[in-house]
Amino acid sequence: MEKSPAPEIMAPSTAVQSAAVPLTATTPSPFRAWFGCASGCAGQYPLNEILYYCPSCGGLLDVQHDLDALRTRTAQEWQHLFDERYRRTLYPYGSGVWGKKEIVCPAIADANVVSTYEGATNMYWAERLGKQIGIDELWVKQCGNSHTGSFKDLGMTVLVSMVKQMIADGVHIPAVACASTGDTSASLAAYCAAAGIPAIVILPRNRVSTAQLIQPMANGALTLSLDTDFDGCMRVVRELCTRENIYLANSMNSLRLEGQKTISVEIVQQFDWTVPDVVIVPGGNLGNVTAIGRGFLLMREIGLIDRLPRLVCAQAERANPLYRSFAKDFKTYRPVKAKKTLASAIQIGDPVSIKKAIRVLKTFDSIVEQASEEELADATALADLTGLFNCPHTGVALAVLIKLVRAGQIQSHERVVVISTAHGLKFVEFKRRYHEGRLRGMASQYANGPIELPADYHSARDAIFRALEKAGPTGRAGLTF
Amino acid sequence: MEKSPAPEIMAPSTAVQSAAVPLTATTPSPFRAWFGCASGCAGQYPLNEILYYCPSCGGLLDVQHDLDALRTRTAQEWQHLFDERYRRTLYPYGSGVWGKKEIVCPAIADANVVSTYEGATNMYWAERLGKQIGIDELWVKQCGNSHTGSFKDLGMTVLVSMVKQMIADGVHIPAVACASTGDTSASLAAYCAAAGIPAIVILPRNRVSTAQLIQPMANGALTLSLDTDFDGCMRVVRELCTRENIYLANSMNSLRLEGQKTISVEIVQQFDWTVPDVVIVPGGNLGNVTAIGRGFLLMREIGLIDRLPRLVCAQAERANPLYRSFAKDFKTYRPVKAKKTLASAIQIGDPVSIKKAIRVLKTFDSIVEQASEEELADATALADLTGLFNCPHTGVALAVLIKLVRAGQIQSHERVVVISTAHGLKFVEFKRRYHEGRLRGMASQYANGPIELPADYHSARDAIFRALEKAGPTGRAGLTF
Repeated sequence: MEKSPAPEIMAPSTAVQSAAVPLTATTPSPFRAWFGCASGCAGQYPLNEILYYCPSCGGLLDVQHDLDALRTRTAQEWQHLFDERYRRTLYPYGSGVWGKKEIVCPAIADANVVSTYEGATNMYWAERLGKQIGIDELWVKQCGNSHTGSFKDLGMTVLVSMVKQMIADGVHIPAVACASTGDTSASLAAYCAAAGIPAIVILPRNRVSTAQLIQPMANGALTLSLDTDFDGCMRVVRELCTRENIYLANSMNSLRLEGQKTISVEIVQQFDWTVPDVVIVPGGNLGNVTAIGRGFLLMREIGLIDRLPRLVCAQAERANPLYRSFAKDFKTYRPVKAKKTLASAIQIGDPVSIKKAIRVLKTFDSIVEQASEEELADATALADLTGLFNCPHTGVALAVLIKLVRAGQIQSHERVVVISTAHGLKFVEFKRRYHEGRLRGMASQYANGPIELPADYHSARDAIFRALEKAGPTGRAGLTF
Repeated sequence: MEKSPAPEIMAPSTAVQSAAVPLTATTPSPFRAWFGCASGCAGQYPLNEILYYCPSCGGLLDVQHDLDALRTRTAQEWQHLFDERYRRTLYPYGSGVWGKKEIVCPAIADANVVSTYEGATNMYWAERLGKQIGIDELWVKQCGNSHTGSFKDLGMTVLVSMVKQMIADGVHIPAVACASTGDTSASLAAYCAAAGIPAIVILPRNRVSTAQLIQPMANGALTLSLDTDFDGCMRVVRELCTRENIYLANSMNSLRLEGQKTISVEIVQQFDWTVPDVVIVPGGNLGNVTAIGRGFLLMREIGLIDRLPRLVCAQAERANPLYRSFAKDFKTYRPVKAKKTLASAIQIGDPVSIKKAIRVLKTFDSIVEQASEEELADATALADLTGLFNCPHTGVALAVLIKLVRAGQIQSHERVVVISTAHGLKFVEFKRRYHEGRLRGMASQYANGPIELPADYHSARDAIFRALEKAGPTGRAGLTF
């Protein structure tokens, strides 16, 4: 454990003050990263440049790392360093993201990091669920157990920290903006509020409920409600970011993927630096599956691991452009018109990161599979009955797992990790409708409603023992009762 | 880091299997704990006995530890052990609760521990909020960033693990039950679902919304909705637990406090084993303030710390029996009729743990203060504007902090820790009503509503720069804008 003379916890300024080191005295990192074209055009651009697209081809950028520098340390040295820092008190290295700073975003001064102690989330041993669906070792990586309740925090900490660094370096950035109705705006608003940086969230008027907006509103974002649809909002955000130096936080900004990439590193770390057999990720805009894939690839490049897991991307049937492309061996890709799905965050017909994702998935032994509305709702409910409480997108991943096990594409002895992307507390209305049998077109087979009784001991007793008897010694599928 | 030959992560059975150690081979712990009367009657009772009240006086029990055994290790040895285990992969010691197993509940076999990797929650450095209210070092202990979204998981893991141990030992326990409309039932249901133990939640019909119930329902608890009020439900639960060997999970069960006690240990650990100056805890049934106080006292007993923090209990003005007792130097205590408060989980007029809490608070340099509805709502909103997103009970604690700073009872140089008890995602309706100005009797002075605009760049641009100008370089109180 790295200890300093005075307590240095999650407090940038106390840490710096107590060690009496001025902010500018940070030793320059020997590690380097830059923006490069994701499609391979020449050119390297500094990460503190306000740049989202390749100046040559107009495609997305990647954050690229100086692999030779990273290779100067052995796998054992990296493991030791990452293990030493994991969840400890020296700011910001206790964070699951910043504990891997060298392979995430090395150039940001510690004092400019805006962190809520992201990552290091539970690798939940889903023992009961695994038994029910025929997998000996099923794990759910609980990325939604975080400050704002979704995995977006992992990327947003990198983006907002970079903005804080740029502002500290004298760059004029009046605000950070995004068009998003969900987790992205929640995360952006929280990190900006923590840093004291203005955040702007732009949304289509009358198409978003206050419940969806309460996180960014509560976290003080300037919330503009425009008379248009989501694409119209996106156009305004882009123009603002182009013309006013407002910083763009939507997922074309590749800095976010660097933070999300740590999900892979953390998975391997949590298995004591061994690689699981299968990783299943829900996919909409496809940034997360790209990030997770890139995490594994980077670890292999620098010798931290020597094999890759199978990578499965799980899509909702009603928003499945990647699935359709996969069915044609990725030889063709056509956007679709996404239909309304319970997995609302992945209701995307033309994913921003489609090219990146296909490139990554081709590198892996990968599968893309889809889940219907009933399949995703049932899988979410079945998992909840064994102690989980996740979002419907996690349900898509679980439903796909069940399908692949039944099809023999995943074997019972394989170690499987399902990426959970958000806490179920963000989706209580979906769960409520399921358990009240109010989701149209499905039987809600795992619904567990209340039993109404008069208020006496004998009625309660009888109801309990009837339920226990009905359940039998092991309970009916999934249900404790 | 404790490593075993094979990966041993958060999986009881794999861990045991891979090390090829049969379940019964656990070395007996040299540490011992037992139930004893909280009011001092003689007698020690095993923790695996189904016992909630002192057989002599009928009062509550405490879990008492063999302090001499604990004192056989030095402070440095305990610190080293706790630090080594913290957030690591050897099940169940990566949990913030079970990493302190010797001082929590030493007799449970590791394989019977039901854990969701509780604790080790962020100590949030509330830098911006601290500056605004005049505290140099303000920290918010994010206990609600957990599996079910509240601090209750810290205690429930101990209770449900003990039940699993008893069942493994051949004790007949058909189910575990509680009467609760909130966090307790959510936590009970999740841990029982993970363990495959039947859970029963008993509630007053028509007085509880499905939203309140969705966690226990989704987690498969048998939910009985009785034609009575809350007290009527409590009577039925008690009778079931007395007559049917159903195990009682309500807060008279003192096992839960042992897990919650680790909050104090973790606070001290996160400050590199130094004690903060002030700890502020919201108080309703008063189990948590008792647990936190007892945690500090135990640490002092075994030499882990040499001083106590000041302990502040924060009550809602509309449910303030402890505050009234404190105003009379704890010489008298009278239950009150709790009025409806936004801080719904602490709307309690006759707290279960009143005697225990008064005993603990008398040992500390303590304060009990209260907050009005507007004060608690404003404090919650002000904190959210600086990046937090907590429950209204945390708001009560923050409001009390603000009052005590203004009154000069807490000084700006003191290191203050506020205990946040639940994630704000459990209280979006409360936040929504605040920001929509719909909470009666208050001005919602920190409300941050959306701005409606036509869908063009110039309107958006003008709105943004007007807001930036109005906010000025540092933003208006609390608001990023």
